[in-house]
Amino acid sequence: MAELSPGFTLIDGQPQTQLSVRDRGLAYGDGLFETLRVVNGRIPLLQQHLARLVRGASRLQLACDTSAIEQELSRLAAQLDSGILKLILTRGDGQRGYALPLPQQPRRIIQLAALPTYPASHAAQGIRLFPCATRLGQQPLLAGIKHLNRLEQVLARAEWDDPAYAEGLVCNQQGEPVECTVSNLFLRLQDGWVTPAVDQCGVQGVMRDYLCDQLAAIGQPVRVRAVSQAELLSSSEVFCCNSVYGVWPVVGLGNHQWSIGPNTRQAQTLAQQVMS
Amino acid sequence: MAELSPGFTLIDGQPQTQLSVRDRGLAYGDGLFETLRVVNGRIPLLQQHLARLVRGASRLQLACDTSAIEQELSRLAAQLDSGILKLILTRGDGQRGYALPLPQQPRRIIQLAALPTYPASHAAQGIRLFPCATRLGQQPLLAGIKHLNRLEQVLARAEWDDPAYAEGLVCNQQGEPVECTVSNLFLRLQDGWVTPAVDQCGVQGVMRDYLCDQLAAIGQPVRVRAVSQAELLSSSEVFCCNSVYGVWPVVGLGNHQWSIGPNTRQAQTLAQQVMS
Repeated sequence: MAELSPGFTLIDGQPQTQLSVRDRGLAYGDGLFETLRVVNGRIPLLQQHLARLVRGASRLQLACDTSAIEQELSRLAAQLDSGILKLILTRGDGQRGYALPLPQQPRRIIQLAALPTYPASHAAQGIRLFPCATRLGQQPLLAGIKHLNRLEQVLARAEWDDPAYAEGLVCNQQGEPVECTVSNLFLRLQDGWVTPAVDQCGVQGVMRDYLCDQLAAIGQPVRVRAVSQAELLSSSEVFCCNSVYGVWPVVGLGNHQWSIGPNTRQAQTLAQQVMS
Repeated sequence: MAELSPGFTLIDGQPQTQLSVRDRGLAYGDGLFETLRVVNGRIPLLQQHLARLVRGASRLQLACDTSAIEQELSRLAAQLDSGILKLILTRGDGQRGYALPLPQQPRRIIQLAALPTYPASHAAQGIRLFPCATRLGQQPLLAGIKHLNRLEQVLARAEWDDPAYAEGLVCNQQGEPVECTVSNLFLRLQDGWVTPAVDQCGVQGVMRDYLCDQLAAIGQPVRVRAVSQAELLSSSEVFCCNSVYGVWPVVGLGNHQWSIGPNTRQAQTLAQQVMS
């Protein structure tokens, strides 16, 4: 096997750096992806990532060979101390036109990247959110899954380059907060945690679901529902989370400020436990 | 130059069949495309295609070297009697993450395909539309342009495989007809032509705009606005159009039937004139 340095890529199990120009992932964004963190040779929440992939594949009528994917991911992870594995599953090559190719020969692409080096202060002292003007379109057929149609995220992320903002808040067409560009959002209201529903737009994050389960198990159930801008601003604590960095407390959005409370630290500890 | 057979591809001017797995067109659908018909070595409506590409590039903050693109398209077309050239413009390679790469090095991909062989009856006796359940999401930031995020079209086109339906009607989230999967829609109401607005979703077709201009010039202005399902069903004539096949009269949608009227034949002639 070639040396495992950042950029190393397997396509259908073979080391490659190029792919067919006829891939429908390129033509239409016709596929899915998962971003997996490797910790000491293991992939935390691997089964949850694979389960979301299967949900997405079902939504897109895409065949998904999870056993080959799991095997390749685990084998690569075992050779790493830390890093990021990005899995892309496309519908494979197509001819001209949107109609599904017959037979479908999905293509799996696994790319290795270095673990991003985030400032330690993000987790310790919290982050500020940039208020993105880009709003997510309402599309229940694609909401929740991690598909390759990501222009909304590209446009939202292009709105700022000031490193004072570690993330950007993205709302739906009604102006209700839904998520951040690469993470989910949790709000602490008087009666407990709330996270925005992602059944009309947004991504159903693996860490989001994990925290919902774990918080419920310790008597802190998380309600999943639409959230207004006013509710966000009236929250006592806010954090964002994903499966790469865990939990970052949110301490600012525009002129608004929050402090970091004990409930956020509790969620942060739950995330750290599963990622170590 | 390699032999010009279907599948022949130029990437940044060089004959290729593979592209970098780091291309953001694959990762995020971060790019645009145009589908151009070649007729006797020429590309009808080439300037209109390029103008739409420039509009899309501006929307996506993507650099667009139209002179290189125009030169390559024209040179390929000159070697063909007929065929389809598909141009894909991506944001080029990226690292991990949505943030725009600096510097951006967009990649242009031109793929040659054979002209599709449609039954002659489509143009002569009209087509039936499949009523797609897939609805387009509302996203003004991406509406009108021909970007690579096409999962909605993939899902809509996957709804039928009965060749009795040559196209599928697609509505917005409110259930209002917007377009077909690869073409735009025109309705004849008592006071003239109407075509659905594409400022919230849908593609602003090159043939659609050409026909709007040409029909206006002969005293048949086309109103562009939201259209209800009831208006569609009460229309006296309906057609769909694109720059590959021109105009196809629509004679059926579910149980509803239309006949082909003189106004549709007039539009069809206008399309034939520019495509010959």
